[in-house]
Amino acid sequence: MPDPLPTDSVGIVTPQTLHFDTPITLACNRTLESYDLVIETYGKLNADASNAVLICHALSGHHHAAGYHSEDDRKPGWWDSCIGPGKPIDTNRFFVVSLNNLGGCHGSTGPGSTNPQTGQPYGPDFPVITVRDWVHSQALLADRLGIDCWAAVVGGSLGGMQALQWSLDYPDRLKHAVVIASTPRLSAQNIAFNEVARQAITSDREFHDGRYYEHNTLPRRGLMLARMVGHITYLSDASMGEKFGRELRDQAYKFGYDAEFQVESYLRYQGERFSESFDANTYLLMTRALDYFDPAYEHDNDLAKALLRARCEFLVLSFSTDWRFTPARSEELVNAMIAARRRVSYAEIDAPWGHDAFLIPTPRYTAIFEAYMDRVAREVGA
Amino acid sequence: MPDPLPTDSVGIVTPQTLHFDTPITLACNRTLESYDLVIETYGKLNADASNAVLICHALSGHHHAAGYHSEDDRKPGWWDSCIGPGKPIDTNRFFVVSLNNLGGCHGSTGPGSTNPQTGQPYGPDFPVITVRDWVHSQALLADRLGIDCWAAVVGGSLGGMQALQWSLDYPDRLKHAVVIASTPRLSAQNIAFNEVARQAITSDREFHDGRYYEHNTLPRRGLMLARMVGHITYLSDASMGEKFGRELRDQAYKFGYDAEFQVESYLRYQGERFSESFDANTYLLMTRALDYFDPAYEHDNDLAKALLRARCEFLVLSFSTDWRFTPARSEELVNAMIAARRRVSYAEIDAPWGHDAFLIPTPRYTAIFEAYMDRVAREVGA
Repeated sequence: MPDPLPTDSVGIVTPQTLHFDTPITLACNRTLESYDLVIETYGKLNADASNAVLICHALSGHHHAAGYHSEDDRKPGWWDSCIGPGKPIDTNRFFVVSLNNLGGCHGSTGPGSTNPQTGQPYGPDFPVITVRDWVHSQALLADRLGIDCWAAVVGGSLGGMQALQWSLDYPDRLKHAVVIASTPRLSAQNIAFNEVARQAITSDREFHDGRYYEHNTLPRRGLMLARMVGHITYLSDASMGEKFGRELRDQAYKFGYDAEFQVESYLRYQGERFSESFDANTYLLMTRALDYFDPAYEHDNDLAKALLRARCEFLVLSFSTDWRFTPARSEELVNAMIAARRRVSYAEIDAPWGHDAFLIPTPRYTAIFEAYMDRVAREVGA
Repeated sequence: MPDPLPTDSVGIVTPQTLHFDTPITLACNRTLESYDLVIETYGKLNADASNAVLICHALSGHHHAAGYHSEDDRKPGWWDSCIGPGKPIDTNRFFVVSLNNLGGCHGSTGPGSTNPQTGQPYGPDFPVITVRDWVHSQALLADRLGIDCWAAVVGGSLGGMQALQWSLDYPDRLKHAVVIASTPRLSAQNIAFNEVARQAITSDREFHDGRYYEHNTLPRRGLMLARMVGHITYLSDASMGEKFGRELRDQAYKFGYDAEFQVESYLRYQGERFSESFDANTYLLMTRALDYFDPAYEHDNDLAKALLRARCEFLVLSFSTDWRFTPARSEELVNAMIAARRRVSYAEIDAPWGHDAFLIPTPRYTAIFEAYMDRVAREVGA
């Protein structure tokens, strides 16, 4: 934690674990008898509980979105750039709730948790979770917190899908949905990259059909490969070029297969670090949730028809060099919103960092996000 | 083989193995004492040996570029669409030479060949080969065939890099270089994808540090993953969407991790087939040759400066949806050629199939390629 603490930081935050013991039935028709959700909150809920904002995380995200866990913490939460006093999601005005989703590996119940029926980790017996299931569990979380209606549900990437699903499944329980760097459904190429990641994990001998916990091992190589592939798709060709170019680690070619170019050792390092800290079964689960997300599916593949049930107002943002979920995918969504006569603001932000741009503050991104959230705050009297 | 044989097919062809026993010293400073190259030829060499065209193959290619090996052969050579009587590379006029490159796994000496010093397969002891080494070995092949000067050296992707390298290393030994869907050097993103492929292979337990031959096994899963990643980069997002969309294999979601979408089972199938037929060490070698290719490197990173030594005329072609080697990469090359005052014709072909478009005949592609090669033929009196 920097000393002195910047005035726009939420400072030290403490996660809470909430236990739910009413069974939840999932899209796959299976039921979890009980489960935990880990959350963090920033700011204060106002008297009429109208100033609550829900943050939904992306594939490898979690509840720790802003601030620090201790004075020794070197890095703040994953979206600290956008959450804090005076930041776009202004914790002086909003009560911000951030959770680790069901199926996650940061404290909420997931494949690594103990299955009460066996006393062993769930592993492959943990049910497949969909974006709809997450939104359902988030609605139950809102009940627990006494929040009838969110001022806004906000998310980037997979998080944006949750914000969109909220608008469809609980149209009266949010005023605004902020959908950033997202897509109304994956393309065949998106699914293909996820499939490579899953094959990398499941074909690792240490995977043991998902029961690696009992074997006291981890499918490190598989998860590392999965992360490496993912990482490439989060960055733009140009930003990788800017960051690494073709720079060599040493001065001359070594004519071998060890890491020779900077980009190779960077990717290996990122992959290795990730493989020590993230659960492989959760990675499978999160990628499958991405694949399955397709709100138009039940409406004759007509997204506008699906959106007819939405009541909230939308902010949709995309980034010019995002090739994972291109601006064209956001425009599909915006066009459907317009066709369905929903209120929507849209901007494509010029930024060089590919999909990761949603995590990196830039003047126009920050200005638009801030202006929109200011309007949300005024609307709810925050 | 279709019956009757199409009149524009070269028909049944027979590969030849040529043995070279003069040692060849490679860019890595190691020497191969002797080696074999497998070739196929189509058409007839004319009296003054002026009508020879060299075909250079891409990453997973080989010598079998056109025609059939037997009547039972179901598929023709990999570039049969462009090589044959009346096709762009017209075997009625040209003597076409196609080889399996050094380091390959289709008969030319490579990692799977017996190391005369040990009596065992080379495996990881096979030297790293560069594009320059290939061109060197191809020049020795030309000597053997009595070809002083190629009418044209032609290649797509990694093959295009060889055509370009020819123009720099043997400027007087080719009249034309045809560089299709290629790039003057890989981007950081290109290298990153190669690195994922290599990590997938080398982290497969069956790889045994490259000595899987002795262990009587193959790193199938690693090679399968490598091919899956590669395959995604060869296709465009749009062409994958066109081919597979989000179509399910069964009617409804199964909520599991088995292949659920068509694109998943397609990729798995392609990967598995490839992993049975291609050598993993060769795959490492070919991807490293791609990484290292950078003719500007020795000329202060100034491609135009490198091109000053070229004497041939160039045809450069790119494809609109190729995101592996985008049209912008071909334009870099063309711009450098123009700056170096070389003669160059360039076209970007509108085609939906991504990088693979160079293997798929389309009217404009065929027309431009044919017109250019017709001019080459006239020039050399073929």
